[in-house]
Amino acid sequence: MAPPEFPSSPAPDAAVPAPHPLTPQLSDAREALTRVVLARNEFGELLEAKIPTERPLTLYLDKQELVTLMTVGAAPELLALGYLRNQRLVPSITDIASVQVDWEVEACSITSRNGVEDLARRSAGRRVVTTGCGQGTVYASLMDEVGNVALDPETRIGQGELYALLDAMRMHDSLYKSAGSVHGCALFEGSRLLMFTEDVGRHNAVDAISGWMWLHGVSGSSKVFYTTGRLTSEMVIKCALMGICILVSRSGVTQMGYDIAERLGIALFARCSNRHFLQYTAPQRFIAEPLQRVPV
Amino acid sequence: MAPPEFPSSPAPDAAVPAPHPLTPQLSDAREALTRVVLARNEFGELLEAKIPTERPLTLYLDKQELVTLMTVGAAPELLALGYLRNQRLVPSITDIASVQVDWEVEACSITSRNGVEDLARRSAGRRVVTTGCGQGTVYASLMDEVGNVALDPETRIGQGELYALLDAMRMHDSLYKSAGSVHGCALFEGSRLLMFTEDVGRHNAVDAISGWMWLHGVSGSSKVFYTTGRLTSEMVIKCALMGICILVSRSGVTQMGYDIAERLGIALFARCSNRHFLQYTAPQRFIAEPLQRVPV
Repeated sequence: MAPPEFPSSPAPDAAVPAPHPLTPQLSDAREALTRVVLARNEFGELLEAKIPTERPLTLYLDKQELVTLMTVGAAPELLALGYLRNQRLVPSITDIASVQVDWEVEACSITSRNGVEDLARRSAGRRVVTTGCGQGTVYASLMDEVGNVALDPETRIGQGELYALLDAMRMHDSLYKSAGSVHGCALFEGSRLLMFTEDVGRHNAVDAISGWMWLHGVSGSSKVFYTTGRLTSEMVIKCALMGICILVSRSGVTQMGYDIAERLGIALFARCSNRHFLQYTAPQRFIAEPLQRVPV
Repeated sequence: MAPPEFPSSPAPDAAVPAPHPLTPQLSDAREALTRVVLARNEFGELLEAKIPTERPLTLYLDKQELVTLMTVGAAPELLALGYLRNQRLVPSITDIASVQVDWEVEACSITSRNGVEDLARRSAGRRVVTTGCGQGTVYASLMDEVGNVALDPETRIGQGELYALLDAMRMHDSLYKSAGSVHGCALFEGSRLLMFTEDVGRHNAVDAISGWMWLHGVSGSSKVFYTTGRLTSEMVIKCALMGICILVSRSGVTQMGYDIAERLGIALFARCSNRHFLQYTAPQRFIAEPLQRVPV
């Protein structure tokens, strides 16, 4: 399946590894991502305003209902894959035979190859409701698992690459620019964009990236994750589990996101805007080319 | 319990109804809401940056573990009350004898007066994971329940009141101004601020407002809800269940938030910034005093 071109799209020149022979069959369900409604402004003028779609998608794994996600619907198959991966419901992408989304019934049917272990047992862990937009639920076991993550010690980013990445994101066409009210996430290799997606919740967007990486066997080594949203504990944990050790945000950092990143040696760049940024953690992952202050 | 003065605080002159005789006993647990960390900027300068706290708070109802919420910790007792109310886990505030937060063990112990119905049965409904920051989980039954909400048909807001409210929020001291990365919510009566709170997830903030209203027996009639976050389905549903029919956001609207608001006659004002706003729904709730365009 070619991921939808807009707004979830790999860069045209992205050298993506060939799919595994056991790659699941994915549908390519599409729906409009925005709707035009009428709104009245401060001058009393009636005008057309574009708003993002938000629709429920109920996931069924081997006919067992899992969860209903609220999504803009840009990459529902990848979202489903990423959800299964990040909730640790299915151990390997090769365990999945197909992912079929049908917007008419707002359902996503996932079929495993040989059945999966009893889900009730897997999901019986404590529910931790996080600060994240989107999928608020991760299981406490993730918190333990993240402690065992081994991240590539060599992955670094230069200040020029960081700026090129931020420029690429600023120029990128997006649902956000046309309708607002969505969060974007992107995966880079250096300053080269591999995958970009948007959703009404930033955790759907990060899950869709994760699903794309899983599908294509892309590791987190030497990758950079970009998000328009905040770097909270859940975002940092999900990226760590994907093996990504450089995170860039237009927004800020929370204390637990900071603590986990510092402990694991994940570099957090936040408050990125034009040439400004703050690096909070893992200075060894940054090749500084400091700007010179212009004398006033 | 007097709610903490900052950043969750009722306005000093707010005429809040006296507590009900069966009002629960609340602890008044406090912890630092921000932490100072070092960060390096684009000039290679090391500087101090303030970030908001994010800590887990595990809720126990009659010693049964419910959920762990990630919170900044500004109003943990109100957050717990609002969570119980909005998840429909406890029918009435008078069913709760006490709410005791102990940050040392990151636990909130809620004791009911006479036991509550079997929680497993109540929470056995489908989990719907929403787009919301914070408590992503609401039960599908809420979606049904919201259809039966009767909102006050008389509640309106004038353009001047809307501006006074926005000015009050712009002037209000906040964690956001000092540390960023939090969402604020506020409850107004006309342009008079009744309650303001912030959290790392906007759904924690709305739950804390809901808990405060529950505690003080404040109805949603003639109230206005303000949020820095987006008006997604979950935000609109929660406000509807609180009986609030005027919602104001600095941010945008999603399609499902729009649809629910339109169906229930809830007025959505979004993209509010200085004198600009867009009213999307329920025009009958707005008393327009349109600005005049200045000829160029």
